[in-house]
Amino acid sequence: MSGELTVSVDAMGGDAGPGVVLAALARSIVRHPTVRFLLHGDEALLKPLLARRAKLKARAEIRHSAERVRMDEKPGQALRRGRNTSMWRALESVAKKEAEVAISAGNTGALMAMSMFQLGVIEGIDRPAIAALWPTKRGQTVVLDVGANIGTDAQQLVDFAVMGEAFARAILGLERPKVGILNVGAEDVKGNEAVRGAAQILRSANLPMEFLGFVEGDDISEGTADVVVTDGFTGNIALKTAEGIASLIMFYLRSALRRGFLSRLGALIAAGAFRALRRKLDPRAQNGGIFLGLNGVVVKSHGAADALGFASALDMAVDMARTKIIPKIASDRAMVAPLFQAAGNAGAAAT
Amino acid sequence: MSGELTVSVDAMGGDAGPGVVLAALARSIVRHPTVRFLLHGDEALLKPLLARRAKLKARAEIRHSAERVRMDEKPGQALRRGRNTSMWRALESVAKKEAEVAISAGNTGALMAMSMFQLGVIEGIDRPAIAALWPTKRGQTVVLDVGANIGTDAQQLVDFAVMGEAFARAILGLERPKVGILNVGAEDVKGNEAVRGAAQILRSANLPMEFLGFVEGDDISEGTADVVVTDGFTGNIALKTAEGIASLIMFYLRSALRRGFLSRLGALIAAGAFRALRRKLDPRAQNGGIFLGLNGVVVKSHGAADALGFASALDMAVDMARTKIIPKIASDRAMVAPLFQAAGNAGAAAT
Repeated sequence: MSGELTVSVDAMGGDAGPGVVLAALARSIVRHPTVRFLLHGDEALLKPLLARRAKLKARAEIRHSAERVRMDEKPGQALRRGRNTSMWRALESVAKKEAEVAISAGNTGALMAMSMFQLGVIEGIDRPAIAALWPTKRGQTVVLDVGANIGTDAQQLVDFAVMGEAFARAILGLERPKVGILNVGAEDVKGNEAVRGAAQILRSANLPMEFLGFVEGDDISEGTADVVVTDGFTGNIALKTAEGIASLIMFYLRSALRRGFLSRLGALIAAGAFRALRRKLDPRAQNGGIFLGLNGVVVKSHGAADALGFASALDMAVDMARTKIIPKIASDRAMVAPLFQAAGNAGAAAT
Repeated sequence: MSGELTVSVDAMGGDAGPGVVLAALARSIVRHPTVRFLLHGDEALLKPLLARRAKLKARAEIRHSAERVRMDEKPGQALRRGRNTSMWRALESVAKKEAEVAISAGNTGALMAMSMFQLGVIEGIDRPAIAALWPTKRGQTVVLDVGANIGTDAQQLVDFAVMGEAFARAILGLERPKVGILNVGAEDVKGNEAVRGAAQILRSANLPMEFLGFVEGDDISEGTADVVVTDGFTGNIALKTAEGIASLIMFYLRSALRRGFLSRLGALIAAGAFRALRRKLDPRAQNGGIFLGLNGVVVKSHGAADALGFASALDMAVDMARTKIIPKIASDRAMVAPLFQAAGNAGAAAT
């Protein structure tokens, strides 16, 4: 890949602190040797950490910021008082075109609020969304929104479909991704006004995607669709419910394999298979909330992510900056704009 | 248990037909030898099936009905034209006090519409809900609503909390069940107006339960709460997402255990443990959508349930009829009624 790319890093975000962030960058520099990093955070902390990593030090620059956004801080409050925080400064580097992408493991709500304020929203898009990559039987599926928007109307769901389809084409390399709207049944009459209105608009849209209509909860893991569109309330609950079930099943499996001599022996012999399963289910491999709809690339790493997890979010950020997803979203959004007028009030409202 | 109980059975509901239903009843009669059954359906089909099962025949009576509700029929249509269907007649037996409980594996929407029409709703309850039992790390949790109501306001969510706590006390034998409202975060400010309004009312309610406030998706499988309250849209999607994830993980596990000689050998040796895991995850063991809020006991078995699944839904139906859950819901609902007035407009609205 030609051309140098600069990644702006909130080195103070997340539960683990800058040590984990720098360990992640050290991993990342091996995979992306031409990338440069701007490290926003407390210089007194970052300097000795960076000194120990010669390779990274050669590609990184520390930008001192005295404060940090707390994990439990309200987004509005962080926005008002946070101009000296590492998070604000990390986004500012993207706003000032010093960097192509920003990454943070900090407070999600504050990061979204600051991103909207500093980078702005793509023309036509009502509100940005957070997308997650979901492992499925056929590969992976983009699910959005997973938490940025609590109440959404039909047009916002259409926006999510546009952003998801553009992401699937740009990042997953699919030509005509299959897009479905999450609902309680596949029939046209099911669900609330928002999902029915969005489906009506998408059925008549001429977007570079295959619109499947409605899909149900179990379709996500089945891999029926490449993009699953939902409001942030349901999407967040579905995602966390899925994490809970995965944890429950591993709990069952461990306890089943501990019961009796044969089970223990079998588990020991098949240890490689269980390691493979654990790797498959490792949330770190799919880490990263992808902010879509902004005039700039921002990726949120999980607050509790370790170096491996943060590095995987970094991979996503680098991919997104390189494939130039923003103009794709903007042009596809412009294509559906006339349909909103056509749908008129029928497609709006709900919630 | 003293006293004879009569179960009214829609013998024609479900994908599998009356053969499976009768096989389930034959299992059930062993567990509940004093129970009587009214079998609603096509006599020409049911008679030869019953003739083969002497024990069941002694406790069952066939009630002929010429028609059946189709699985894809719209609830409103079924309600209008369905007076001669096995489903309608099964509910009619409960309405006429010939039976204490009705069970069907048929069309869920039609069953709910006919139940509301024939049995009526408990005084004060706005709309009935469908509850599901969810396996957790600590046992099981009641989740409701899982699909009956698409848009719900604060008062309806409070109704669900009342019905869930009454169910947990009556059927799960908990003295003060822990109740949580499903949301995207634990903080008071999170979520939509409906969940915030419901939390406000429940915090000041003096119900026989411990109100936890908000819980998140992963709390369900964790077993944090005994009762998880949510609207039917989110609840249905969470439930089906969970089924999808369970299926995905078993798919991963099978493929991991097939890769390489050691994995296969280990899987063979630990086969007992995998059988135990599969039993744990078998949806048939938790089968049955529990209709709550009606002036009568109705249980919905999964449409695709086999005899084992239908028999487990029957167990639930018998338990519910014996423990007299309806007066418990009615008296607890009466207790929260004054709070609705107090909350006024603050607690209503939102979808």
